[in-house]
Amino acid sequence: MQLIDGKRIADEIKAEIKIEVDMMKSRGLRPPHLAAVLVGHDGGSETYVAHKIKACEQTGIKSTLIRYEDDITEAELLRRIDDLNADTDIDGFIVQLPLPKHIDEQKIIEAILPSKDVDGFHPVNVGRMMIGLPCFVSATPAGIMELLSRYRINTRGKHCVVLGRSNIVGKPVSILMSRKAAPGDATVTVCHSRTQNIPEITRQADIIIAALGQPDFVTADMVKEGAVIIDVGTTRVPSTETKSGWKLKGDVKFDEVAPKCSYITPVPGGVGPMTIVSLLRNTLQAAER
Amino acid sequence: MQLIDGKRIADEIKAEIKIEVDMMKSRGLRPPHLAAVLVGHDGGSETYVAHKIKACEQTGIKSTLIRYEDDITEAELLRRIDDLNADTDIDGFIVQLPLPKHIDEQKIIEAILPSKDVDGFHPVNVGRMMIGLPCFVSATPAGIMELLSRYRINTRGKHCVVLGRSNIVGKPVSILMSRKAAPGDATVTVCHSRTQNIPEITRQADIIIAALGQPDFVTADMVKEGAVIIDVGTTRVPSTETKSGWKLKGDVKFDEVAPKCSYITPVPGGVGPMTIVSLLRNTLQAAER
Repeated sequence: MQLIDGKRIADEIKAEIKIEVDMMKSRGLRPPHLAAVLVGHDGGSETYVAHKIKACEQTGIKSTLIRYEDDITEAELLRRIDDLNADTDIDGFIVQLPLPKHIDEQKIIEAILPSKDVDGFHPVNVGRMMIGLPCFVSATPAGIMELLSRYRINTRGKHCVVLGRSNIVGKPVSILMSRKAAPGDATVTVCHSRTQNIPEITRQADIIIAALGQPDFVTADMVKEGAVIIDVGTTRVPSTETKSGWKLKGDVKFDEVAPKCSYITPVPGGVGPMTIVSLLRNTLQAAER
Repeated sequence: MQLIDGKRIADEIKAEIKIEVDMMKSRGLRPPHLAAVLVGHDGGSETYVAHKIKACEQTGIKSTLIRYEDDITEAELLRRIDDLNADTDIDGFIVQLPLPKHIDEQKIIEAILPSKDVDGFHPVNVGRMMIGLPCFVSATPAGIMELLSRYRINTRGKHCVVLGRSNIVGKPVSILMSRKAAPGDATVTVCHSRTQNIPEITRQADIIIAALGQPDFVTADMVKEGAVIIDVGTTRVPSTETKSGWKLKGDVKFDEVAPKCSYITPVPGGVGPMTIVSLLRNTLQAAER
């Protein structure tokens, strides 16, 4: 069993991005510039945005944090997005989700110029990804594909079972895994809450991508000997072991599943660290266009 | 075994559309208006467009055929598309594919205003379909879903195996079949040319959607007793039985597979007739917006 070290790969990619940013600067260009819009004071959102800004600093990407109180109106936020769309100094920007209930998230997402939508949530980017055209792929699916690629895991003709059909992980990763590319070219099965015989299906899988958000869902009896396991779950569960009082738990019962695997991602330290570097890569790409 | 009669269902839907169009007219509104752009003289394209125009006539939808010789430049065609986008008298339009080699098809597709893209090929419509937002779904996947719906075939929790990963059938129908909806909510496996053990996988299927374009690919030994078979294949093969010298062949070896099925679509007369009514429905929907 080999551990897929997302932290190490993420650090590698950050170093590569830093080299590219330094080269841009040495050619007299300004560095890529990411803006992050944060509305309100949700604890999770504060942490995610802080991590994104820190990662920008580590790679030389310029970042700007734009904060609003959670009483900002939808109209005001849309106006601010128009400003960011028009601002030639900003290559890409994100609006951290979730947003307060009085704001229509989909309307906000669709207001972002697709060429600046480094989160890859705009329908144009989703559609282009599906068709196989150049686009911004959203962070988690892109991070998963990058891990498979860096560990040279052969996916061609393999049976990949995706657990979960969310818009941000399950659906896009199923398309990426089945498309004619490397990594890709896998036979892909998507399972979800209505699937009747998940263990029977996962036992046939060469690769399992678990993105249900149900801690310890995948147990040893559900996994074939030698399978590759990508655990996308990041559920916060109470814990007396940490200062914060909680820890992250994956969808896979790691201790019993790991010994059966050829490769497995831990939680934390697997897919998680990759999501931020996917955002940085998209920002770099936006600046290079 | 029950035959899924696409011709009958298509006629039913045409009658329904006609009632809606008549109601629009009786309210003093103009009928929906579809324009079809045909470049060159490809035999298949001529036939398809002629069928679409005839179907418009049957339902009271106004249609306009716009023809160009195959030496039209890409720039000229793009200008004509701008005109159609701006023309308030036209609710939706299609550009019949394939286009001559000197024209970039993707560029043409993306030039069409998404709100007039009744073929559902624009990335915005593809992306919105994937996310589960209101959109124009392209004709063949929409037709398949409609057949399943009209025959009240239960798809929830069933295992649906899709053969083929094309942008116009395999990928979109896999998303539609797995999404939280009825029809839908199926466990979906997508197989393609790189899949190693197709018969083993199809034998597990409650529903098979065959869209490979390989005549007689699905044989009786690949099908579970009681399965539902949707045959999307329409390959022209030489024939001495027809005046034209060819006939349409599906991906399924109908004679030997049909006795094992609960439901099966014939070729021709199954999915084929449904594609045109999907286009008419999209046009009606465009006019109602």
